[in-house]
Formats: sequence, structure tokens, C-alpha cells
Amino acid sequence: SGFQGFPCKAWIWSAWEFCKDDVDRVIFSFKVGLAVLLVSLLILLRGAYEIFGTNIIWSIITVAIMFEYTVGETFNRGFNRALGSLLAAILAIAVGQLPQLTGRIAKPIIIGLSIFLIGAITSFVKLWPSLVPYEHGFRVIIFTYCFIIVSGYRMGNPIRTSMDRLYCIAIGGFVAAFVNVLVFPMWAGEQLHEELVNSFNSLADSLEECVKKYLEDEELNQAEFSEKVMDEFPDEPAYRKCRTTLNSSAKLESLADASKWEPPHGRFRNFFYPWSEYVKVGAVLRYCAYEVMALHGVLHSEIQAPYNLRIAFQSEIQDAANQAAELVRSLGKDIWNMKRSLKTSLLNRVHSSTERLQRVIDMHSYLLTTHYDLPDNSSNPFPKISHVLSTTPNDFLDQQEDDVWSTNHEKSSNRLTQNLTESYYEMMRKQSRMLNSWPSSEVDPFKKGGGFRISILPQMRAVKSTAALSLTTFTSLLIEFVVRLDHLVEAVDELSKMAKFNHEDL
Amino acid sequence: SGFQGFPCKAWIWSAWEFCKDDVDRVIFSFKVGLAVLLVSLLILLRGAYEIFGTNIIWSIITVAIMFEYTVGETFNRGFNRALGSLLAAILAIAVGQLPQLTGRIAKPIIIGLSIFLIGAITSFVKLWPSLVPYEHGFRVIIFTYCFIIVSGYRMGNPIRTSMDRLYCIAIGGFVAAFVNVLVFPMWAGEQLHEELVNSFNSLADSLEECVKKYLEDEELNQAEFSEKVMDEFPDEPAYRKCRTTLNSSAKLESLADASKWEPPHGRFRNFFYPWSEYVKVGAVLRYCAYEVMALHGVLHSEIQAPYNLRIAFQSEIQDAANQAAELVRSLGKDIWNMKRSLKTSLLNRVHSSTERLQRVIDMHSYLLTTHYDLPDNSSNPFPKISHVLSTTPNDFLDQQEDDVWSTNHEKSSNRLTQNLTESYYEMMRKQSRMLNSWPSSEVDPFKKGGGFRISILPQMRAVKSTAALSLTTFTSLLIEFVVRLDHLVEAVDELSKMAKFNHEDL
Repeated sequence: SGFQGFPCKAWIWSAWEFCKDDVDRVIFSFKVGLAVLLVSLLILLRGAYEIFGTNIIWSIITVAIMFEYTVGETFNRGFNRALGSLLAAILAIAVGQLPQLTGRIAKPIIIGLSIFLIGAITSFVKLWPSLVPYEHGFRVIIFTYCFIIVSGYRMGNPIRTSMDRLYCIAIGGFVAAFVNVLVFPMWAGEQLHEELVNSFNSLADSLEECVKKYLEDEELNQAEFSEKVMDEFPDEPAYRKCRTTLNSSAKLESLADASKWEPPHGRFRNFFYPWSEYVKVGAVLRYCAYEVMALHGVLHSEIQAPYNLRIAFQSEIQDAANQAAELVRSLGKDIWNMKRSLKTSLLNRVHSSTERLQRVIDMHSYLLTTHYDLPDNSSNPFPKISHVLSTTPNDFLDQQEDDVWSTNHEKSSNRLTQNLTESYYEMMRKQSRMLNSWPSSEVDPFKKGGGFRISILPQMRAVKSTAALSLTTFTSLLIEFVVRLDHLVEAVDELSKMAKFNHEDL
Repeated sequence: SGFQGFPCKAWIWSAWEFCKDDVDRVIFSFKVGLAVLLVSLLILLRGAYEIFGTNIIWSIITVAIMFEYTVGETFNRGFNRALGSLLAAILAIAVGQLPQLTGRIAKPIIIGLSIFLIGAITSFVKLWPSLVPYEHGFRVIIFTYCFIIVSGYRMGNPIRTSMDRLYCIAIGGFVAAFVNVLVFPMWAGEQLHEELVNSFNSLADSLEECVKKYLEDEELNQAEFSEKVMDEFPDEPAYRKCRTTLNSSAKLESLADASKWEPPHGRFRNFFYPWSEYVKVGAVLRYCAYEVMALHGVLHSEIQAPYNLRIAFQSEIQDAANQAAELVRSLGKDIWNMKRSLKTSLLNRVHSSTERLQRVIDMHSYLLTTHYDLPDNSSNPFPKISHVLSTTPNDFLDQQEDDVWSTNHEKSSNRLTQNLTESYYEMMRKQSRMLNSWPSSEVDPFKKGGGFRISILPQMRAVKSTAALSLTTFTSLLIEFVVRLDHLVEAVDELSKMAKFNHEDL
């Protein structure tokens, strides 16, 4: 009755959306509830309580601490807890015997000293890089040790105390493990598999998005970049996904770590399934993604090639990007379906369309470096270069076709030579004129809407005439992306070999 | 006696190195030891034990769980624990009263149901993105609630039980907090500050390293890249540091989260010190680092501009890179010294040297796009372009100087025009010849040492003639890096404003 109608409704609505988004979350919550209920029943039902007394509370703590989202993490936590408790118990019993040998007066001193040492040593060891994943285990050692040795000192019989505790922890551990595995298990391996495939898709998406934007937007809005530099490109969902891919290395690693603890399950039926290969493939994928980030940088750069120049190479750029994206997607799909197929034809297609792009850029490089007065109306762009070069990419590598191709090229380049030689003098004249009138040919320093920019800071002045070279940068980065795809194909092939994916068409 | 001499020695040696590397680790270990010793003394010394009984064990557990490396994290953990315990206690007491109203038979059912609900609800809520940092608190709620309600059911008087527990947790919390703050405190804020400054330095280092390698290595060893793609560039320490910077977003965020819990200390004397600004500056820094990653990509690309072409632009590239690196370092130094100074003159220098690079590339773009037969002996490179353009960068923005500069340019470009026009026909002739002899002008597919590569996979064929354009890509990326530096300067300025750094020369 104290609630106000509207915010409460909104809250329920967003909670509902949150559930619908991933039903596993609700399942997970119910599983935790079930596990703590089961372990509490032990105490409520009198029997166990009479045997173990207050120690039974350790079962509850164990469930609460051990119960993680995925099976692998739960097992990992359980292992840490079990081993930590066991080690602590052994140590506590061993040290607990010492005072009986040395006499009563030395007892508190020995116990105090041992607590200090255990605390210091475990804290030191857990900082060691290769032991960081077992951090929780070391924490368990400290407090289990203190607990056993202190309550042994006060209540006598440390062996009895520690054995009772171990039994209770074991009960809690088993309840947590059983509920986690038997009731709608969530496998870290499954998640890792999906995560990796999603990364492939978001890489392909963001490549296509980036190229599409580069070719479509007549006026790349450079001024916006300064406001957008802090993470928000609201109209580029794929780019944002790709960027999360870049930051996902820690997530992949922790999922792979957890997956190693899982028994064979579902589609992953091999023992020693190579989960760590997933991390490696993810690293190569990130290498490719760096190029997309750089492409995105060119897209939002302040120095920009004019629209009609970009559009002149449209079909080649588009083709290379599409082929590359298709290859990336097909790699992702193969991993998803756990099958192994040779990517020869796709790779050939990607390579040949990239080579075509290279040649086109190469042949028409005069467009990029000299200072044509580009016509301002974009309805009248350069003649599409693809009209000149129209070979089917698939037969491209064929020697015979290649000769035909070269002849085509020769013709076109002869034509170009004619056009060029007459315009060359004029071109140079224009260039020197531009250099004379240098200050007026500057691009305006970009303005900011928010008044956020400190006006005292000098702005970078962009030389307009090099703007066309930005197209070269774009295509070079695209080509470099394709080159890196070779490594990606290799890494995926290595994974599919080690994971024994099914051959399809070998 | 069972140890073998050598591995044991090696182990001790590496442990010693590990300590020497960062003495704080040893201090931290001793602090944990001290804290658990102090809290154990409470039990060993009889007094506290007689008041609280076995509940005193919660003090130990609290210390073991709460004691983190930095002050901020410890406070954060302590807050989670305190609030979690408090909420759980209130809930448990409230629910504990219910059965007394409903009668004895319903009691276990109500308790069981409430345990299930608490477990499910807290587990669900902790998945909510904005509540993820408080994950530990929700865990505490579950087991504290179960503990209190169950032991209340078995032993009666849940209020007494929960109050005792809360006191014990408070004792443990105070011990942990006092030891952490009073004995050689390690501040997350201090670490964040240092981390950010280090990122600036490693960015500058890796930019310089990258450019140096690009200009020095006569034969950029492209074949190596395929073996190195998996993370290892052993001869490029700065690059590796820079890459860790890219992956450090999570670390910066968690440090900033922890720093917010810390009281003013050391050099950070303001309340509400803007720690979250550090994360923002780190994000802009990463934007700059993406360009360095792309530069590094060009450096190790398979398509490579010939050495004597690279060396022709040496002084301009070097100059721009050095100025940019100096600016980055000086920004880092300013943050380190917590002073605010205008970067106008440095920015001017960077901009003018970058503009010089742009112009030089622009003027000599014919070198990049046409197919000169470059002399093979590198002892005879292109005449250094800087001989033609020798203006002091500082006076560059001056209008008068600018005119002189333009005149220089005019002269040189006239000279170039003469040289060019006569060679142009020959150039085009060569180009068409190259296109005819296309298959022979391919770069050899790179070979691998390890036999790791699958020989069936087709290789990307690089068009040699576009190789020179890779230089353009390199310089464009360098220029884009400089453009992004504007944003970095802005972000640092924003930080220094919000953190009230001392003005120096405004």
C-alpha cells in the first residue's frame, strides 16, 4: 500500500524482461533455493542434528559458498573447499599434538605462532601467479585451521572436531553438487562454446556494418566522434558487440578454467576436451578484431576521403568485406555444429576478391594521391571500376582466365594512360596552387556542441589533400584483416582437430 | 633431506625474486598473519570466549574473508558482510516470530519455505547487473539467515544468537580493518594512480618502439608473424606492455571501485576524489592504444613497403612519433605529479610535425603509388625529404613563416614536376608491363618453420605493387593516433580539473 503505482510497475516490468531475456537465471535461483532447503532439512529433521550438533551449520555455509552458476565453477569451488579443509585439518591435528609433547605452558604460544605462520604463508602463496585461481582454497585453509585449532584448544579433541566438520562440509558439498548437476545443469563448456561462436558472428557483423557505413554515409559525421569517443556509438550495435569481444579475454579464460572441471556432457563427449584451445582461437579472433577497430577508427576519422572517391571502389570493397564476413561466419557455424570442413573455396574467394581490390587500388592510385577537383554532386561519381574489371572471382585463380584478365587490364590501363598523361600537367599545377594557398585549404577544426572542449587547446589541422589517402588506409586495413583470417582458419582447424570434430567433406 | 638440491634452490630463488619484485606482498602476508593472530587471541585469552562461546569463531571467519590486499577492497568486503549479516538477522528474527503466531506444527514448514525463498530471491537479485559487485553480500545473507533461523529453531532465542553473531562479526571486522589501515596500508587509489601513469608510459614506449622497428629493420621479418601471432613478440617488450594495457579495463574498474571506499589519504586529500575519471581517461587511452596495435599490425604485415621508401620519410615519421610520445609521457608525468599544466606548446609541436608528415606524404605520393624500380642496395636510399623541407616546427603556425614555407614548397614541387613529367610515361609503361607479367610479380607465400600450417589451405597472394601503399597506412594510423591525442589531452584536463590538481603555469 506504501508503494507508488508507477515505479513499482516499471520495476516489475524490467525484472520480467530480465527473466525473459535468459530463463536460466530463474532456474539458477530456484536451484539455489532448493539446495539450501535440502541442506536445512538435515537440521530441521532432528536426525543429523543429533549426530553432528552445531557443526551441521558448516553444511549450509558450504552450500552457500560453493553454489555457483555453472557446473564447472561449482566443482572448482568444491575442490578448493575440500582440499583446503583437508589440508587445514591435517595441519591442525599435527600442530594440535605438539603442545602435548612440549607441556602446557608453551601451548598457547605454539598455537598463536602457528596461526600467525599459517595466515602469513597462505596469504603469500596465494599471490603467486599460477596459484591465483585457488585463492578461495587458501582462504579456506586459514579459517578452517584457526577454527579447528582454537576449538580444539577450548573443547579438547581436535580430531573429533575436524572430522565432524569435514563430514558436514562433505554433506554440503554433495548436496550442492547434486542439485547443480541433476537439476537443469548449466555447463560452462556450453557457454564457452556459445560465447566463442557469438564472437565470430559479432566480428563478421561489425566488419560489414563498418564497411556499409563507410560506403553509404555521404557525410561521415566526424564532429560527432569527439562526443562519441567515450564508448557510445548508439547507431552501431555490431561495433559495440565487437568491442565487448575485445574485452572478453578474461571471461573466456574463466569459462575455460571452469569447463575443465566438467565431466563429458551433451555434445562434448571426449574426456580432456581441449577447452584451452577455445581461448587460443579467441586470442586470434581478437587479433582480427583489432583490425576492425582500426577500420572503425578510419570510419570516424576527421581526415576523410571524399564520398565519390569511396563510392568509386564500392563494389570491390564491398565484395572483399562480404566474402571475409562470410568466411568468418562460416567458421563460427562450423564450430557451432562441431564439424570440420575445408575452407578452401571460401578462402579462395576471399583471397581473389581481396586481390582484386588490391589491383584496383593499385591501378587507380593516381586518384588517391593527386588533387582532382572532385565533382561535388554525388549523383555523378567516378565510373564504377567494376565495369572495367568484370571477371568472376571464382575462376580468378585459373591461369587461362588470368591471361584474359591481364589483357583486359592492359586495355584499361592503356586507356587510363591516355587520360592521365594529358591531365598530368594540370594536376601538378593544381597541386602547387594548393600548396600556395595552404591556409585556406584546411579542414575546419571540428566543433563541439557541449562546450566541453577547452578552447585554449590547439586543434589538429588536417591537410585536406591527403584525405584521399585515407581510402588507402581503409583498404589496407581490410586487406590486413583478410591476411589475418588465414591465422584464424588455422586456429579453428587446430581446434577442430584436437576436439575431434566430425569431418564432412574431406 | 628428501629434497633434491637443485629444484629446491631454484624454487627458493624464484620466491626470493618474487618478494624482491614487490615487497608489499611480504608485508601483506605478515598483515594477514597478524590479523588472524589478534582475533585468535580473543579465544585463547579466555575472556571473550566465556562471553560469546562458539560464536567467537565468526570473528575468525570474518577476518579471513574480509582481509583483502587493499584498504578499499577490505572496506568494501566489510560493508557487504556487515550489511548482509544485518539484513539476514532482521529477516531471521522477523520470520522467527511468525511460527509463534501460527502454532508449532506449521513451524518447520514456514522455516523451510522461508529458507527456499531467501535462497532463490537473493540468488536472482545478485545476477542483476548493477548489483553484481555486491555478490558477496547476498551470499552472506543466505548463510547467515539459514544459520540464525536454524540454530534458533534448535536452540531457541534467535535474537540472542543473532546478536552474538553480529558482535563477533563486528569484532572480526574491526580487527581486519584496523590492521589493514594502520599497518603499512596499501591504498587502491595509490595503485590506480600508478597503474594509469604506467599505461601512459607504456603507450609512449610502444609507439616509439614500433616506429623505431619500422624504420630500422631492413627486412621486416614477415614470416615470423605467423608463428608469433599467438601473443609472443619476445623482442618487443613495450608492445607487450601496451597490450596488457588494452586488457586492463577490468583491473582499472575494480581498483576504482575499491578506491571509492577509501578515506582521503596521502596525496589524495579531497573527499569524493574523482576515481571514476581515472577509468574514463583509461578508456580514451585505450582508444589511442588501438591505433598503436594497428601500427604494430602494419609493422608485421606481410605486404610491406620497401626499406628505402620507408627510410625516405624517416625523419618526418620519427619526428611525429617522438613528439607524440613526448606528449603522452608528459601527460602521464602531470598526472603523476598531480599538477595541471597547459599542453599548448607540446600539442602545437605534435600537430606541426604531424602536418609536416602529411604534407611530405602528400607531395611525394607518386613514390607510393607508382612502380619505380627501387634500387636494391639500401646504402643508396631516396634523398632525405627533410633536406628539402627544413623549417623549425615551433614557428610553424606563424603566418609569416607559413608563407616562407609555402614558397619553399613551391620551389621543391616545381623541381619535382620537372623530374616527374619526364619519367611519367616510362612509369606507366612499367606499370602495364608489370600487370602483364602479373603472376611472376607475386610475393612468395610465406613459409612456416614448424610444419604447423595445413598445406591444403590456400595462401593469400600479395600484390607487390601495392606494397608501397602500406607506408601510407602506417603514416595515416600515426596521424590518427595524433588526432586521438586531442581527446586524451581533454580527458586528462577534465580529470585534473575534477581532482583539483595544482595549477602550474596558467
